[in-house]
Amino acid sequence: MNCEVIAVGTELLLGIIVDSNSAWIGEQLALAGIDSYLQVKVGDNFQRIEACLRQGLERSDAVICCGGLGPTQDDITRDVIAGVMGVTMRRDAAIADKIRRIFSARGRVMPENNLRQADVPIGARVMAEMPGTAPGLVCPVGNKVIYAVPGVPSEMRAMMSGTVIPDLRRRSGQSAVIRSRVLRTWGMSESGLAEVLAPRVDDLDRLGNPTIAYQASGIEGIKVRIVAKCDDEATAARVLDSEEALLRGLLGEVVFGIDGESMEVVVLKLLRNKAMTLAAAESVTGGLLASRMSAVDPAMKTFRGALIGTQEADGRPALERASSAALQARRQWGADVGLAAVAEAPGVDERAGTRPVALAVAMGSAQHSETTILPGDGPRLREFAVINLLNLLRRKLAEDPA
Amino acid sequence: MNCEVIAVGTELLLGIIVDSNSAWIGEQLALAGIDSYLQVKVGDNFQRIEACLRQGLERSDAVICCGGLGPTQDDITRDVIAGVMGVTMRRDAAIADKIRRIFSARGRVMPENNLRQADVPIGARVMAEMPGTAPGLVCPVGNKVIYAVPGVPSEMRAMMSGTVIPDLRRRSGQSAVIRSRVLRTWGMSESGLAEVLAPRVDDLDRLGNPTIAYQASGIEGIKVRIVAKCDDEATAARVLDSEEALLRGLLGEVVFGIDGESMEVVVLKLLRNKAMTLAAAESVTGGLLASRMSAVDPAMKTFRGALIGTQEADGRPALERASSAALQARRQWGADVGLAAVAEAPGVDERAGTRPVALAVAMGSAQHSETTILPGDGPRLREFAVINLLNLLRRKLAEDPA
Repeated sequence: MNCEVIAVGTELLLGIIVDSNSAWIGEQLALAGIDSYLQVKVGDNFQRIEACLRQGLERSDAVICCGGLGPTQDDITRDVIAGVMGVTMRRDAAIADKIRRIFSARGRVMPENNLRQADVPIGARVMAEMPGTAPGLVCPVGNKVIYAVPGVPSEMRAMMSGTVIPDLRRRSGQSAVIRSRVLRTWGMSESGLAEVLAPRVDDLDRLGNPTIAYQASGIEGIKVRIVAKCDDEATAARVLDSEEALLRGLLGEVVFGIDGESMEVVVLKLLRNKAMTLAAAESVTGGLLASRMSAVDPAMKTFRGALIGTQEADGRPALERASSAALQARRQWGADVGLAAVAEAPGVDERAGTRPVALAVAMGSAQHSETTILPGDGPRLREFAVINLLNLLRRKLAEDPA
Repeated sequence: MNCEVIAVGTELLLGIIVDSNSAWIGEQLALAGIDSYLQVKVGDNFQRIEACLRQGLERSDAVICCGGLGPTQDDITRDVIAGVMGVTMRRDAAIADKIRRIFSARGRVMPENNLRQADVPIGARVMAEMPGTAPGLVCPVGNKVIYAVPGVPSEMRAMMSGTVIPDLRRRSGQSAVIRSRVLRTWGMSESGLAEVLAPRVDDLDRLGNPTIAYQASGIEGIKVRIVAKCDDEATAARVLDSEEALLRGLLGEVVFGIDGESMEVVVLKLLRNKAMTLAAAESVTGGLLASRMSAVDPAMKTFRGALIGTQEADGRPALERASSAALQARRQWGADVGLAAVAEAPGVDERAGTRPVALAVAMGSAQHSETTILPGDGPRLREFAVINLLNLLRRKLAEDPA
């Protein structure tokens, strides 16, 4: 069973929009165990979309066609698919009704051409998910199939998860449940992780299930993905849980979260569990830490505030200045924990392309500080300083018995 | 003359990397007047890359193949192209030498398989640009051509601009110089811009050169792109200059910059020209303004600092609180200008999905403040508050005669 992806839209070819939909679809197909060898982008042109669809059906079992389902004259995916199926269109009364209701709920007058979105090639099935005004279509062509989904990412994702992936798995005769979990790590290199996990990877290679893979993701750290293929949901959940526990045992504190959990979300949870508040003094990070923390705590109940400004190099070493700044931030905001990052003065221990940055956490009666060598260009230095400072806080919170 | 783009890499199909290279290449082709109807992504598989190249050469005059030029066994683009050309490879001594020197300059030992990057299909020409260890190749196939460029964006871009685009234009017989300039605008809707510019667009439709087009870019504002097609550089520059002056006259202060200039870069320039310093008090924007300003002014000589924290709703209207906060920030940092953004308390003038935010600029003896209605979900509210606040400052700095 293999499936190719066709993204439709002249704006994709012109580079006005980057096609991130196909990347997401590719990831979902891989996780579902469906092979996908080719992805194509084509403009809003009848002949060229048709050629892509016909070629796709020749070399693949299924084609996912993303985009071109809107109400304007440019949106011709429906018409091309009807041509490839060799059928005409019917206007679907239920969809037409739904579109009219969406407009009236928004208090807007519906332009008549919006009803083009209710046109369905005869023989095609309408997907149950319809978050917007564009219906998704399952279009059989002989023993193969074209799926048409809108280019709006949220609508496309709902239809992929709700209809396309389950239908592809049913067609491929796969009854196994494939589930994955990502362990997020910070503070160990990819080769370091690989070395620690090598014996377990060898075991899994023999067992065949689950599998694990690494994915370096820059300032998001290195992700370790566990994929389990099982007979049912309950077994898959058990396999993921037990593998997660085993890997956490091997990796220890470098695992900071799972799946979509960012470092700031993890830190916020730990602080909330302990009913502690946080404040920061930022110089080298220039407000980036405050921006990230306040994005996940917009009411600023836990992250109380920050003071952004340069730290005058007063002759004291950066570690000492960072510690004072962390204490000052805590005092100024009446918070339980104070954080600060201060770059070492230029000329102190400079190696090519790097810069030492002092990180400090003031918590209770304890002061933790350490110097870390970071990549020295502007944006990366800031990003790395923030994630390392948050990670230091996370480790100290995890150690703290209170 | 038309050209298709093939991006090579299994990680692209699996969604581990989003293919933004093809979007950039598509934009460059469009700007150079080269038609491009199709873009394809394919994995690191000999037969499938070969099929894509052969199909590409059938339907297009040229194919740009991006990626798969690295030193590992996965990197097979060179080999596939040699197969399609029907030739063998030769090891290029000059490239081998260059690769050895790159490694020794970095103080690293070169793994022997890195010399695979010096293998060139016989009959192919090596591009002059070589910022990394992968050479770019111009590979004639009959009267058509395959260009091979690396997947590393900076290397790919240097080769596209230096060799591929000029070569495509030469092949297409185009001698005209095509140059573009983007006017960045903030504060007018796309339909508003279109209305103001309609008479000029009509004139240009008749004249044929230059052309203008709009591109809505979210919190980056709406871009107005001028494209001039002329006989030589000097004429193109003159046409762009005069069209820019004409459009600025029609649009007035909504034009904040050109090409890559962000709002914060423009504000920083204006402040530096006037030798003024800036400080901010952030509540609803949570450090995002400080983060953006300090990113363009990392030494914080002009942007002196910020105070991040919630503004207690003390019964005063948001406008009044924003004005006080702007004055306080200015005082605290001893700056010439103070900025603040304060969200109206919940319940005050709430319309569905929006929130009123008060913006204040304290400059010299003057206080400017205004309330703006912003989209009410978290990240967009913050982004829009920051850009609107910076834009208010920009307008006031432009008006200020000092």
